[in-house]
Amino acid sequence: MIHFGNDYNETAHPAVLAALAAPGSHAGYGLDEHSARAASLIRNACAAPAADVHFMVGGTQVNTTAIASLLRPWQGVISADTGHINTHETGSVEHAGHKILTLPSALGKITAAQVAALVEEYRGSGVLEHAVEPAMVYISQPTEYGTVYSRSELAALRSVCDEFGLTLFVDGARLGYGLAASDVTLPDLARLADVFTIGGTKCGAAFGEAIVFATPHPYFRNAMKQNSGLLAKGWLLGAQFEALFTDSLYEAITAHANEQAQRIAAAFASVGIRLLFDSPTNQQFALLTPEQEAALSEDYVCQFFEEHDGLRAVRFCTSWSTRDEDVDALCASIAQL
Amino acid sequence: MIHFGNDYNETAHPAVLAALAAPGSHAGYGLDEHSARAASLIRNACAAPAADVHFMVGGTQVNTTAIASLLRPWQGVISADTGHINTHETGSVEHAGHKILTLPSALGKITAAQVAALVEEYRGSGVLEHAVEPAMVYISQPTEYGTVYSRSELAALRSVCDEFGLTLFVDGARLGYGLAASDVTLPDLARLADVFTIGGTKCGAAFGEAIVFATPHPYFRNAMKQNSGLLAKGWLLGAQFEALFTDSLYEAITAHANEQAQRIAAAFASVGIRLLFDSPTNQQFALLTPEQEAALSEDYVCQFFEEHDGLRAVRFCTSWSTRDEDVDALCASIAQL
Amino acid sequence: MIHFGNDYNETAHPAVLAALAAPGSHAGYGLDEHSARAASLIRNACAAPAADVHFMVGGTQVNTTAIASLLRPWQGVISADTGHINTHETGSVEHAGHKILTLPSALGKITAAQVAALVEEYRGSGVLEHAVEPAMVYISQPTEYGTVYSRSELAALRSVCDEFGLTLFVDGARLGYGLAASDVTLPDLARLADVFTIGGTKCGAAFGEAIVFATPHPYFRNAMKQNSGLLAKGWLLGAQFEALFTDSLYEAITAHANEQAQRIAAAFASVGIRLLFDSPTNQQFALLTPEQEAALSEDYVCQFFEEHDGLRAVRFCTSWSTRDEDVDALCASIAQL
Amino acid sequence: MIHFGNDYNETAHPAVLAALAAPGSHAGYGLDEHSARAASLIRNACAAPAADVHFMVGGTQVNTTAIASLLRPWQGVISADTGHINTHETGSVEHAGHKILTLPSALGKITAAQVAALVEEYRGSGVLEHAVEPAMVYISQPTEYGTVYSRSELAALRSVCDEFGLTLFVDGARLGYGLAASDVTLPDLARLADVFTIGGTKCGAAFGEAIVFATPHPYFRNAMKQNSGLLAKGWLLGAQFEALFTDSLYEAITAHANEQAQRIAAAFASVGIRLLFDSPTNQQFALLTPEQEAALSEDYVCQFFEEHDGLRAVRFCTSWSTRDEDVDALCASIAQL
Repeated sequence: MIHFGNDYNETAHPAVLAALAAPGSHAGYGLDEHSARAASLIRNACAAPAADVHFMVGGTQVNTTAIASLLRPWQGVISADTGHINTHETGSVEHAGHKILTLPSALGKITAAQVAALVEEYRGSGVLEHAVEPAMVYISQPTEYGTVYSRSELAALRSVCDEFGLTLFVDGARLGYGLAASDVTLPDLARLADVFTIGGTKCGAAFGEAIVFATPHPYFRNAMKQNSGLLAKGWLLGAQFEALFTDSLYEAITAHANEQAQRIAAAFASVGIRLLFDSPTNQQFALLTPEQEAALSEDYVCQFFEEHDGLRAVRFCTSWSTRDEDVDALCASIAQL
Repeated sequence: MIHFGNDYNETAHPAVLAALAAPGSHAGYGLDEHSARAASLIRNACAAPAADVHFMVGGTQVNTTAIASLLRPWQGVISADTGHINTHETGSVEHAGHKILTLPSALGKITAAQVAALVEEYRGSGVLEHAVEPAMVYISQPTEYGTVYSRSELAALRSVCDEFGLTLFVDGARLGYGLAASDVTLPDLARLADVFTIGGTKCGAAFGEAIVFATPHPYFRNAMKQNSGLLAKGWLLGAQFEALFTDSLYEAITAHANEQAQRIAAAFASVGIRLLFDSPTNQQFALLTPEQEAALSEDYVCQFFEEHDGLRAVRFCTSWSTRDEDVDALCASIAQL
Repeated sequence: MIHFGNDYNETAHPAVLAALAAPGSHAGYGLDEHSARAASLIRNACAAPAADVHFMVGGTQVNTTAIASLLRPWQGVISADTGHINTHETGSVEHAGHKILTLPSALGKITAAQVAALVEEYRGSGVLEHAVEPAMVYISQPTEYGTVYSRSELAALRSVCDEFGLTLFVDGARLGYGLAASDVTLPDLARLADVFTIGGTKCGAAFGEAIVFATPHPYFRNAMKQNSGLLAKGWLLGAQFEALFTDSLYEAITAHANEQAQRIAAAFASVGIRLLFDSPTNQQFALLTPEQEAALSEDYVCQFFEEHDGLRAVRFCTSWSTRDEDVDALCASIAQL
Repeated sequence: MIHFGNDYNETAHPAVLAALAAPGSHAGYGLDEHSARAASLIRNACAAPAADVHFMVGGTQVNTTAIASLLRPWQGVISADTGHINTHETGSVEHAGHKILTLPSALGKITAAQVAALVEEYRGSGVLEHAVEPAMVYISQPTEYGTVYSRSELAALRSVCDEFGLTLFVDGARLGYGLAASDVTLPDLARLADVFTIGGTKCGAAFGEAIVFATPHPYFRNAMKQNSGLLAKGWLLGAQFEALFTDSLYEAITAHANEQAQRIAAAFASVGIRLLFDSPTNQQFALLTPEQEAALSEDYVCQFFEEHDGLRAVRFCTSWSTRDEDVDALCASIAQL
């Protein structure tokens, strides 16, 4: 079987693996030289010399820890109803005490106008203390659908956050693919978001997410430890991000995965199979008949997403580990559907 | 000004006040003879000799304490998006760690079919541990819109709860008005719900909600105390419910308030003013022009609810304290609009 | 039976009861004229015109809501191991997510030196983010033992709080008795504490605690509502405190209770029965033989506290409702032991 | 510098590293063949075919997730005051809502008699719902001091847990060293504890802790995900434990570290330097003069623990990565003190 089921089914890019396996003795809990160098490389890549950079193991962990450490108990976070924190994190944000204030999304995205309307409705209600105060906006770049926010859309969200005093949090669990497929750069993120993550797990690392605060969060290490997110051998995170941010490896492997995904998209188009929507990133959702899905599933791992117009939207996902010959094979199989 | 703004703007029915003011020395924390007698009166009224009855001060308190004490951390509660716990309790349920799984409501109500569909979607998702497990259904009787569930609707919800192993919780903050306006009786509630509340604050008491568990909750007093809900002078709650459940006072005052509300509804109808919907309980939502609203607001306290078709839906609310002459005056004013 | 078991076994002082029963229509949720007047009377009594005053129903509620609304998640509160929040509130503070950092107490009291040592040990540990940051000091005035802090002891605690950036919280569940028995006044508290409570439930009210913030807490009403502590008919709290702070009623009834308690103490002394310690407030702990305890328990409700040197420390508690003739009777019975 | 500062300063034993780096495509979230095999190896080693085995990244994570998933909100966990959950996890257990009920410890250990006394005091208090219910016992094997419970001590704790209906949780963050230094075996733990952990991070793994429930916990994966503890590439945990539990590697490396530690202890003894106590495991606490500490600190990383009798207790810690020649060097240096 050739794997297009997700982007976290192999361990790590060889350069990352090599960094993980390097010998040596280190200070624990992220106070090591690898973590320091990785943070420095990320600050450079973000053109944000004052940014505060930390490393955690997983996405749910970094999302929940950051959100809960920035909100007061009576505050909530605005999110697309399709946002990962709302659908696939077992209620971690609520478990930490905070309501998610959902907005209906278009292909995973929400707009500045939607955010403004929600806050205005809250403020106009006249019963401020009886409802959860909207205090943060959570978006994913790219979204759970593989779509991306443009720089102007992000700037509009920044603007509405400034207007209403909201914190802007960008979940970059798959950020690499989004950087390669949109006009939003790391410096844009560091400038427009209050805090964002740079996903490793789905972008070539074995595990690990970097989190970047535009201005220092003096107690984030306390929050990390309390939320079980201060890895004892923190250099394992630092070393991986050091590898990913050396010689533009992060950019290179995610851009390559996007290209592979576009080849798959083109293969579907060439035989008249529609995609659920036009995705510029590493996730493609093809609208297949049950027979077509069955045929491809004989040789390829792919993932059913949802029913759509009587067809089955099936996700094909590429990553750093997707080989050219695997895509060649898939495209050939598609051509025979 | 004559008050139709809400049903909690005067202290308490005289019989309740007299009970509150009775002299005497008592055991604390609800272990007194008034609380015992009130619980017994409620068990009788519910035809539920094995029911477990407790008394707490407020609605948010009793809702949150009961919900959080019955759920495990990874479980959530299904509610109408208009449910009081979802809109007007400052995220207390999430503050206690639990996600509210919302369903779109029709005039405040949800259906057994909606509940079944939500649970089936969760169970069919194949990623059970990545999402919040639906474990409880929360409904309000009457709803926040003044509408009521019928006995057959309630039985259908019971049925779906049995099928899927869910707990059925009925928020009866205004239960008196609902009992008087629907075919659902206290014995029906005790038989069909796992737990329900009997609202005092909005139904003639100065404060206080009774909570009835169909089967005993052995640790509910622990949960009450931990959630700041074990009143030191608990006899103040017991004495009020003793008064309300003596000589059918609770029934009488809420039925009378419903009748007053129907007189108001008829007055609007007689001058061609539509109501937002047909409400059988003590809340009536009239669709007024801004001029009509302004005219009535000169002499009467009423509450703007929402814009609707270019008109303003304005709530007129009756209670035990609504006097006949006040309704007469309002009806006369309506006739002159 | 004559009741000396506790100070919350009768409903309320007649003036408070009359205020509770007054007719009238009011705005809800504490936005009424009684609450406003009560707050104003308290600010005057505290000589603190800028203080922020709110009213809640119970002691556990006001303690937990205030503590949790002032701490960040990784912060804890320093308390005597005998502190009410540590022993008799079912872990409400921990339920709200915060560790209580306990200090061994002497008759319910902790010292500035103990606080300083705890914070210095934390700061000197070198692993700040691995432990809970001490951020608040909680004391009770009077303590759970009926002892009191002097003004100079309170000033020393203020000093150490200033030095280390800690918040000073004073739990005044029985504050009236403490004011009458110590040199600490309400203006002292408003000047030296960041936040303190003025207990009603145990000092003449039917229920209710006032909370006074030296500087406004802009979101405390949000925290109150989220913690089920925003009473719908908030005027019931306002009216009681209005009565208590009119014509020095609060002072008068608690001072009188202290005097009654001193008569009881003298009666024990006159027959050679030792008290557990010298208490200036309304709680006296007599060291009785089992036979003496049994003899007094025939006619008087009193409360066993703890074994001590082979004797039984038994609490005799007075309150606003303790009548002269009851104390006369008790003293006569003591004289015959 | 030669490192004796802790047992987690190098990445992992070569066999574990090799397992981490193995190529291949896997199912995510612990549903892979490595995790299945590792769980099977552990069940075999525990002689517990029905045990439920899961893998998480870190110790705070596994402790908090297990404790909070087994307790109800009003319940607390009994622990030595020196327990890791009480001192070095930033209040994670309280953050999850539960009080830690501390007992004074002797060299990190608590006794069955202490536990019984605590529960009996709670049950005898007569105010059960006003205090936190003791529901679980937490111990560390070996303790934070490197001491161990014997099988009979563990059986006594089991006995008291059975008598009072408590859950027995054993934190085995350094379990390997404890197994090699006590008469408690893995089958003993599986038989006597309700749940225990097998530490990887400090015993040769790069990261990871196994958790073993004597009887299945049907929702533990939900709790893991909600607590950010379901690793996306779960095979990285499975593969490491597979390596550790193949050919008794776990036993071998921890036993060897204990032997190295005994050589260090003997070296101190031979020059008349006392140890803080007699530790059979990989942690030795030498009582040094400041001069001696300074001398050794020139070439060796070691860790100051606490002042003791005017001397400095300094920890020397061995691990799988401690080489014979490093211990030789240290012993030679000690001989010259």
